[in-house]
Amino acid sequence: MMRGGLLALAALALGASTVAAAERDRVEASPVYGVTLPKDYRHWTLISVAQENGKNNDIRAILGNDIAVKAYRKGKRPFPDGAVIVRLAWHYQSSPRNDAFFPSPQSFVAGEPTNVQVSVKDSKRFAASGGWGYGQFEKGVANQDVKLMQSCFTCHNKLEKSADLVFTAWAP
Amino acid sequence: MMRGGLLALAALALGASTVAAAERDRVEASPVYGVTLPKDYRHWTLISVAQENGKNNDIRAILGNDIAVKAYRKGKRPFPDGAVIVRLAWHYQSSPRNDAFFPSPQSFVAGEPTNVQVSVKDSKRFAASGGWGYGQFEKGVANQDVKLMQSCFTCHNKLEKSADLVFTAWAP
Repeated sequence: MMRGGLLALAALALGASTVAAAERDRVEASPVYGVTLPKDYRHWTLISVAQENGKNNDIRAILGNDIAVKAYRKGKRPFPDGAVIVRLAWHYQSSPRNDAFFPSPQSFVAGEPTNVQVSVKDSKRFAASGGWGYGQFEKGVANQDVKLMQSCFTCHNKLEKSADLVFTAWAP
Repeated sequence: MMRGGLLALAALALGASTVAAAERDRVEASPVYGVTLPKDYRHWTLISVAQENGKNNDIRAILGNDIAVKAYRKGKRPFPDGAVIVRLAWHYQSSPRNDAFFPSPQSFVAGEPTNVQVSVKDSKRFAASGGWGYGQFEKGVANQDVKLMQSCFTCHNKLEKSADLVFTAWAP
């Protein structure tokens, strides 16, 4: 009886830790693709910058890991497996501080971060979406909106075939 | 006679190579400060992004070497000697290609590069300009406009003292 009770307790504890692990994965990985935020991406090489008006109203930087950057520099398409591209974005914000020294209001800077989007190339794992898996992260937490995730491929897939589903060009 | 002739020839060759070296330095280093373009800056860590309208009409990225980035991350001011900050800029360009997939024209990207500006912290070497030396490079060649170089310090020096003459804040 006592032994059975201990076993039941152990099973319960194991169950709880499995649930905790599942919960952790839930916030760390994107739905549909299971893409996580690369640990060191903030130090990756700059690919380019961009700015979006409209609903986004952001200013953005696109960074790449070594595999992605090497492919960019060599003009290699499709991107090889292992290439990862990260798009950071911040609120597009007027800078009165900078404008004080300019002839007219003209300076815009990065405000609070909005979200980070990650594209991972793995032609086998993500074969159903052109070889790319996607994730979007707010404050390091993976957005769990399945429709949002599905919209990544739908939109990237509209690009010309030679782009290998990537919007951003290398900024020399 | 013959030995003297050879010596004269050697001196001539030496003179030519000195002139060539001076010419190389002239295009590689900024006037006033003697700042050169760091060899590997394009792979440095992103500090932030910005966008300027008006005469500049550019979109920009600010990168830093390890010393600068460490100071940014720790909020350390003034920046320690050895900190180097590089500002890249490109024409601010509408992207009809991207806009084709957006609800309205809203996407701006990096066009042709305009120039690269370099700020080097060395409190002794650049004591006369608040510890910072400056350079501006077009296609890798140092701009030789002395007045332009002098305007760097004049403008950066208008900032609040706690900024240590640096406009850009770290983008989280």
